[in-house]
Amino acid sequence: MPQGKPLVIPDDGLTTRKRRQRDLVVVHTGEMKGKSTAAFGLTLRAWNQGWPIVVYQFVKSAKWKTGEETALRALGRVHEQTGEGGPVTWHKMGDGWSWLARPGAARGGGREGSAASALEGWEQVKRDLAAQAYRFYVLDEFTYPLKWGWVSVDDVVTALSGRPAGQHVVITGRDADPRLIAAADLVVEMTKVKHPMDAGQKGQKGIEW
Amino acid sequence: MPQGKPLVIPDDGLTTRKRRQRDLVVVHTGEMKGKSTAAFGLTLRAWNQGWPIVVYQFVKSAKWKTGEETALRALGRVHEQTGEGGPVTWHKMGDGWSWLARPGAARGGGREGSAASALEGWEQVKRDLAAQAYRFYVLDEFTYPLKWGWVSVDDVVTALSGRPAGQHVVITGRDADPRLIAAADLVVEMTKVKHPMDAGQKGQKGIEW
Repeated sequence: MPQGKPLVIPDDGLTTRKRRQRDLVVVHTGEMKGKSTAAFGLTLRAWNQGWPIVVYQFVKSAKWKTGEETALRALGRVHEQTGEGGPVTWHKMGDGWSWLARPGAARGGGREGSAASALEGWEQVKRDLAAQAYRFYVLDEFTYPLKWGWVSVDDVVTALSGRPAGQHVVITGRDADPRLIAAADLVVEMTKVKHPMDAGQKGQKGIEW
Repeated sequence: MPQGKPLVIPDDGLTTRKRRQRDLVVVHTGEMKGKSTAAFGLTLRAWNQGWPIVVYQFVKSAKWKTGEETALRALGRVHEQTGEGGPVTWHKMGDGWSWLARPGAARGGGREGSAASALEGWEQVKRDLAAQAYRFYVLDEFTYPLKWGWVSVDDVVTALSGRPAGQHVVITGRDADPRLIAAADLVVEMTKVKHPMDAGQKGQKGIEW
């Protein structure tokens, strides 16, 4: 946990307070576990600040992340009932995005359907950013639609760079595009030192989901 | 997120189901942010499984991790009120461990006091493990008392290796001892690709705490 004085005081005309409050684009990438997990860990801090949080899950499978979803939705309900923390909104591509009239109906199930769904998700993210709808965004597994060419990296970089103030964005997934890394403020790579699957261990509840 | 078949099927006489349920020692190490954050993200999955969770915070400062603490304590209250998820227990060295009659009173404030407090924390972890008091343990920043010689690495490895079944343990912090890494099932290193403090950015709420 880095503390204390930064190494360089930038010549950007900003006060320390202003600089401290800079909105961040955060990328969690690398081959190893922990990318999404750390992003959802960050949402706990955002929740505690009372920030409106939105999660966009850019994955097809409904199996993964159920633990995080249930827990963060529970925190969202705590906010609704007591005012503590912030509200939580959770969008899943796997079930068809919920803001669509007939989720997934028009898309079909194949690769083309996924590409169209991913693009629809990103278009909604852009609308949310333009409207300053939330203060903390998790675009989970978003590097994959970028990698597969379903969503334009340049469009993403442009939208992130030009987004209105007061919005942090965390993007997770392997193989983050160099343009995305260049546009990000904070990039963490999760590196494998040792994984039980190397020794034949299978994924298990409470750990992988 | 690794899915599907493991690379190797171990010749350990275990069924897949048994192997799937193997209890893990997880280490999040490396120079970069995300170690504790990913550990607290994992607790969301554990909570969703209804597992009793305990966090031991082996740090002096009370400032950091307040977001995670508040959010996880809120989830603990959700469990108390509705039965959803699991119970959450949170112990802080910084405030003096709560199970001590006069927290911190006998320790004093200096390095010696911290060493004694860290050792007291670890002794309580050992008692909890022996009693199977919880199913999911986070020993946050625990590599530091090990690094500084306040707690014996060999004692930790022995206690972890011999702990009763049904208990996952996640340990975070830089410079994990090679013996700890050898004893762990899963080790993730958080590596810096880019950090805003390199450009003079200071820590900020909702991101660093």
